Amino acid sequence: MSQPDNAVIDDPMATPFIKALVGRIRADDMYGAWERKKDAALLADYIVTREERRNMPMISDPDPDTLMRVETFYQAVGLAIEQETGLMASPMMKMSHEGFGRVILTSGSLVVLAKSLRDVHRFGFESLAVLAREGEKAVRHAIEQINRFPEVARA
Amino acid sequence: MSQPDNAVIDDPMATPFIKALVGRIRADDMYGAWERKKDAALLADYIVTREERRNMPMISDPDPDTLMRVETFYQAVGLAIEQETGLMASPMMKMSHEGFGRVILTSGSLVVLAKSLRDVHRFGFESLAVLAREGEKAVRHAIEQINRFPEVARA
Repeated sequence: MSQPDNAVIDDPMATPFIKALVGRIRADDMYGAWERKKDAALLADYIVTREERRNMPMISDPDPDTLMRVETFYQAVGLAIEQETGLMASPMMKMSHEGFGRVILTSGSLVVLAKSLRDVHRFGFESLAVLAREGEKAVRHAIEQINRFPEVARA
Repeated sequence: MSQPDNAVIDDPMATPFIKALVGRIRADDMYGAWERKKDAALLADYIVTREERRNMPMISDPDPDTLMRVETFYQAVGLAIEQETGLMASPMMKMSHEGFGRVILTSGSLVVLAKSLRDVHRFGFESLAVLAREGEKAVRHAIEQINRFPEVARA
């Protein structure tokens, strides 16, 4: 079940995490503006190539769209956890200025994932495969934590 | 050790929670402006009488001072937990508009306290005794949770 951290994902779009992320983004499309958009196109903002990253300032306040994108990423992690375990996992994010912060996901009384955030203004992934890998990694980590303390996740 | 929820506290200023809260507020006093202020005076903003509450609007966005006051309250809960258990307990607060939100305190991988917030623009307590009682109640609840799952609080 567990795969090496840097495993290449053959079909990123087929991973539970990416499916949850696409579903989460489509749920926000209240007026059907993205109905004809392909799934991969919806994820375009999550892709930041090395060159794009190089052209971004080292330090900057993240804009609201970027913050929303980070939050949506962790909401999708939570959805994928719920689909596999049946346990709701909801994120809480706290950002200070200049793109530093913290996000935690909890299920019941258990912190299933805790991550420090930095350079959030440059949040993004080199490719869909890397996006899928990092999302899946977070999902796997959280599910391991739930399996370690199941009675706390249900408390 | 545990006391009924509505117990009257004889000396609110002597409770670990109020001591932590006063300490937390004084720590913000970088220029010594409040050095001559008595402890109880520092807590004046936390006291909202029934009449004051009646005169507040039912629904309103909380101002930044009020939000800070709520956050400081839960930071003090966290400090009092740490003083008794040796475990750091840090709050994360998430507010939506109109004073609704959620605060959780975590120690290690354990959610030691989770509370929905509402009507935050009217956040306050009828008296110092009620402030102390509510703070102590939160501290006791969190410590019970830690005692229930000590290995998770240390994870």
